[in-house]
Amino acid sequence: MTAALRAADLAPSGWLEPGDLALILRSAYDPVVAGALERHGALGRKPVDYLLRYGYEGRILPVNPRASQILGLPAYPSVREAPQGVDLALIMVAAERVPQAVDDCVAAGVPLAIIASSGFAETGEEGAALQADVVARARAGGLRLIGPNCIGAVSFNTRVLATFSPLFQAESVPFERGTLGFVSQSGALGFGAASLALQRGIRPGWVVSTGNDADVTALEVLCELAELPECEGLVGYLEDTPDIEALHRLAASGKPVALLKSGRTEAGSRAAASHTGALATDDRVLDTALRQLGIVRVDDIDELLDVARAFESARRPKGNRVAVVTTSGGSGILAADAVERHGLELSPLKPESTEALGAIVPAFGAIDNPVDITATVLSDPSLFDRSLDVLIADDTVDSIVACFCVMAGADVDKAVDSLARAAAKGGKPILVARTGADFLAPDAPQRLREADLPEYPSPARALRAAAALWEVTGGAPRDPVEAPATPAARPPAAGASEPELKRLLAEAGIGVPEGRAVAGAEDAVRSVAELGGRAVFKAVVPGLLHKTEAGGVVVGVTPETAAETYARLAALGGGVYAEELAGEGVELLVGVRTSDLGPVLTVGLGGIFTEALDDVVHRLLPLRPGEGAEMLSRLRGARVLSGWRGRPGVDVDAAAALLHRISALVWGWPGDFELDLNPVRVLREGAVVLDAAYTVGAGRKDLR
Amino acid sequence: MTAALRAADLAPSGWLEPGDLALILRSAYDPVVAGALERHGALGRKPVDYLLRYGYEGRILPVNPRASQILGLPAYPSVREAPQGVDLALIMVAAERVPQAVDDCVAAGVPLAIIASSGFAETGEEGAALQADVVARARAGGLRLIGPNCIGAVSFNTRVLATFSPLFQAESVPFERGTLGFVSQSGALGFGAASLALQRGIRPGWVVSTGNDADVTALEVLCELAELPECEGLVGYLEDTPDIEALHRLAASGKPVALLKSGRTEAGSRAAASHTGALATDDRVLDTALRQLGIVRVDDIDELLDVARAFESARRPKGNRVAVVTTSGGSGILAADAVERHGLELSPLKPESTEALGAIVPAFGAIDNPVDITATVLSDPSLFDRSLDVLIADDTVDSIVACFCVMAGADVDKAVDSLARAAAKGGKPILVARTGADFLAPDAPQRLREADLPEYPSPARALRAAAALWEVTGGAPRDPVEAPATPAARPPAAGASEPELKRLLAEAGIGVPEGRAVAGAEDAVRSVAELGGRAVFKAVVPGLLHKTEAGGVVVGVTPETAAETYARLAALGGGVYAEELAGEGVELLVGVRTSDLGPVLTVGLGGIFTEALDDVVHRLLPLRPGEGAEMLSRLRGARVLSGWRGRPGVDVDAAAALLHRISALVWGWPGDFELDLNPVRVLREGAVVLDAAYTVGAGRKDLR
Repeated sequence: MTAALRAADLAPSGWLEPGDLALILRSAYDPVVAGALERHGALGRKPVDYLLRYGYEGRILPVNPRASQILGLPAYPSVREAPQGVDLALIMVAAERVPQAVDDCVAAGVPLAIIASSGFAETGEEGAALQADVVARARAGGLRLIGPNCIGAVSFNTRVLATFSPLFQAESVPFERGTLGFVSQSGALGFGAASLALQRGIRPGWVVSTGNDADVTALEVLCELAELPECEGLVGYLEDTPDIEALHRLAASGKPVALLKSGRTEAGSRAAASHTGALATDDRVLDTALRQLGIVRVDDIDELLDVARAFESARRPKGNRVAVVTTSGGSGILAADAVERHGLELSPLKPESTEALGAIVPAFGAIDNPVDITATVLSDPSLFDRSLDVLIADDTVDSIVACFCVMAGADVDKAVDSLARAAAKGGKPILVARTGADFLAPDAPQRLREADLPEYPSPARALRAAAALWEVTGGAPRDPVEAPATPAARPPAAGASEPELKRLLAEAGIGVPEGRAVAGAEDAVRSVAELGGRAVFKAVVPGLLHKTEAGGVVVGVTPETAAETYARLAALGGGVYAEELAGEGVELLVGVRTSDLGPVLTVGLGGIFTEALDDVVHRLLPLRPGEGAEMLSRLRGARVLSGWRGRPGVDVDAAAALLHRISALVWGWPGDFELDLNPVRVLREGAVVLDAAYTVGAGRKDLR
Repeated sequence: MTAALRAADLAPSGWLEPGDLALILRSAYDPVVAGALERHGALGRKPVDYLLRYGYEGRILPVNPRASQILGLPAYPSVREAPQGVDLALIMVAAERVPQAVDDCVAAGVPLAIIASSGFAETGEEGAALQADVVARARAGGLRLIGPNCIGAVSFNTRVLATFSPLFQAESVPFERGTLGFVSQSGALGFGAASLALQRGIRPGWVVSTGNDADVTALEVLCELAELPECEGLVGYLEDTPDIEALHRLAASGKPVALLKSGRTEAGSRAAASHTGALATDDRVLDTALRQLGIVRVDDIDELLDVARAFESARRPKGNRVAVVTTSGGSGILAADAVERHGLELSPLKPESTEALGAIVPAFGAIDNPVDITATVLSDPSLFDRSLDVLIADDTVDSIVACFCVMAGADVDKAVDSLARAAAKGGKPILVARTGADFLAPDAPQRLREADLPEYPSPARALRAAAALWEVTGGAPRDPVEAPATPAARPPAAGASEPELKRLLAEAGIGVPEGRAVAGAEDAVRSVAELGGRAVFKAVVPGLLHKTEAGGVVVGVTPETAAETYARLAALGGGVYAEELAGEGVELLVGVRTSDLGPVLTVGLGGIFTEALDDVVHRLLPLRPGEGAEMLSRLRGARVLSGWRGRPGVDVDAAAALLHRISALVWGWPGDFELDLNPVRVLREGAVVLDAAYTVGAGRKDLR
């Protein structure tokens, strides 16, 4: 992974602005023969063709040693011999010639090159070495690289087309200005998704493919686009592990972001030694990180585009309560089903709203939310206006999803007019589910677009998009995480014993049982007496991770059995530690391990819940206020903590406080480590750590 | 709910065939004025207009007392006065005039009427009474009804358009023959989905809306369409609880079926007295029933259409192993992610396939599954042909998903040609994920359609559809359920005691602890001795459901404590029953309760698993061979049974056998009942029912 970059490092001069654009154009695919570049269909011809066709206003500088001109433009044998001041180079030569092209760019003072050529890390070791060489040459010379193995970059706003994507060779491409940034590691998928977006009337402003992410990553490009004032939303397709600093920068930009990160299922396959490690699968950590940062994660291309469509509208909800207004009862039910699925709530509506709707909606409709105004809207188009007015005025409604089906021609126009009037009145997002073919109302998509009304073919998809607007708005704080105010304690020594760890925990205000080292058989008897007449004895043997399984823990030691128990444990080769018996309660597993995204706190209910059910919750550290309690409430088995079926609850507040203290304690500990508190017993009052283990340098698990 | 009908009852003469069609046309919406029916946009005009416009070949008989002709056709004042032998009537008069129209249809010997009019059960009690009256009149007169409150029915094959749906007023409707049946309770949603299907190139053969399902239900219409030889697949949108007999008939037709049943989330809200009842939420029972019957359940309209598109192709997989071939690595990863999500497997491919692919695929591609042939296919179109040939020949591949992105023009044509050749060669389903706009290759959808290649915009959607083909083919046996060979035991008497229930269970070969009634204090001591020196004593008090909570169960009674314990339990007002202590093991909850879909067997892990985690599995009875073990394996906590973290497993086979014996025992028990075996303890060897309760007539929970 590259070091995090400041956007300013990446493109001091604005690399997607019209400027001098060098196209280093010996195709990686076509045999090099004189004139090949002008052959129709040759890859090398495409960027020149596109730039001319779509009216690029900067200077185009084709580079090719065997051509004196290309499509009427003078060509240069090398970028060194082209006019000085090139802003961006697109390199399309065969892989083995890329080092030379990079050297030439360095010599010519080019700040940024896009290497489209394949034949690098994606092909194996040899290609990886070539890629490393190219990156090293560029870095040494102050040249930043996008790619290799990508399809280039496009700005619809400045008409920079540094790409050979077949998207632009179609006869009729909707080429307009746009406000959304599309960034994809996969060029084919990225431009494919962009083409589907264009077809739907979504307007990308920038499409950038980054391929192998050898130097500048897809995420860094997203960060850069996020800093453009005219950019109103970002969507990305990633294959590599995102860099947490770049994710933070992206979130801090305040621009709405949705990511499709592939490789979800592979992530589950990694095994690890200790419980926490084994359970905190990397993909879940990423889920957690994105949720914490208010970045939407999607699972498919349609979903990415659905969310992008919502991002194009500037309206944002103030909360998660949605009102559904529908002309079809069926759509209303489907919408209600989807509300819950996506973490939204159906607004209860104020009594005065329900009353007002009662005077508007026909008797066979519905005035509860979903509000079913019925097909009567066909004969009385004011129904839509009047009911939307009620919902806009109701401050228990944060966003509105309007559903209609199969209406045709003028009926659709009227509905769209009503919705447009409503949209113009209030700041609330209004999303439209129009379940009907375009041939029924060919102008509807364009009219909805003009009215800034995102459109979807089904209620469920409209609600997914509405939920995304909430996720980026209020679902999570977007400000960068601050280190806790209290300075971090020094980390434990590698190989710290359980008593040492417990001392450290106690100093941090974390509950542990009273305990003492046992000095011999006689001291053992005394210890039990001092600890209340019954105690737990534990062998303290360096490197013995699973004490219980090794017979190193004896519960319920009495003065009578103390001496014999001491002897047995001491025989394991280390010291013996005695602790008071903790009261009854519910056991948790609490762990912290470092990941590529930073330290991750994991909490689960002890024993079978975690072992057999994977019922754990993760959070990237440090915790924000309230997150400890929230983590506990998200456990599927949370009822066990709060009391169930007549059993008393335990001290959930103490458990939450413990999580926050752990967060503050470990924040800033350097290197890779795992801290395993298993179990933590949550009592009727308080919570105590019954066992603790700490390992360092256990090896960070790669994310995919 | 109506009684189940034979399809022959519904339409002896083929109600969607050209015949005499009476249109009873006083609009429910327009004020009745002379000439109103001919006014453009009048609802009553539409069916006449559509039938004429789309070339209906039967006789059209408009009925209206105030018109002598409509759109040039002679009109009749009543259906009684129309020519005899009317095959189908469409009734569109205002609700209060529907009884008269129905009477007229009865008098005229019409076999089937579609009542489009609104104003019935959907409006409240008064409307419900009117609806009941109308149904009673029709039934008494031998007339079957579809509707009311629907938008009618269409056959694209016979050009019957008994509908006023605005779908058919669009200027350009793709009106072709089709093979899919679309049936929807919601008319707007049904015709809306049908319009989206037409836009995508899917060809519905029949679209029927059934509204309130007052007589003939949506499911019965699906059954009827399933019997048409030219029907190749069915999709439905349902709001009401499906009838289990009709579901069985539908499944037994062998035609692939997908259902969108709304109201999923409402179902969770119903509380119930006993555990099993509370957990067996109705929506989950429906999920179970559909899975058992091989009927695909979908969650959204797009998904319904995606699956419908796959049903149009006749090719079916022999197993769940899929091969992915892709021109884009990104699509391949997304496809792999989706495979697992949808219950499919990536075929491992045979070694000879991998070897053959190694000779075909470029070095920077991938020859494992997903097979990434890379964008090199642009310069060498034979790559697709050759790799598809390998996958077709490999019998570890049951279906193929081919992904490509953003290709344009002739490149798409070549890819489609390759896929068409491959499709023609083998019987395996080939589904296409083409992530690119139609404007890149305007002919591609049509060409893919002609080659019988279902097309999707993303790999995930193609894989969902591929999974549906497996769900309807091999996912479940489709034959009707047979009653078990062993005749059902008589059900327990209402209010049967625990000892009585255990005797019944023991007679059915189901393990119970040895036990005996205790006759007095002296007998109590003797009983404990006979049962091994330690026993469980239970109060047997009629109506005491939660014995343990009431202090009615004492575990570990010794000869010393027997008399005192007896006295304490006897004081609760009933008898006392002594049982041997069961060995250690894992506890299950097993229950049966009747539902609208028949008796449902529920199994869960005891205690916290069920209480706090809802970790239960349901099956409609009777169980088929192997289903008991399968139910247990589907528990999230299944690891507890098979042994985990060094703990020994228990006798899962005995637990599975117990489920089958329960199934055989209760099958045929009449009426509504709940049998609650909680807990059942699964031992190292065997399984015993520790407690049993039986209630009758507890009230069946409504399904939504």
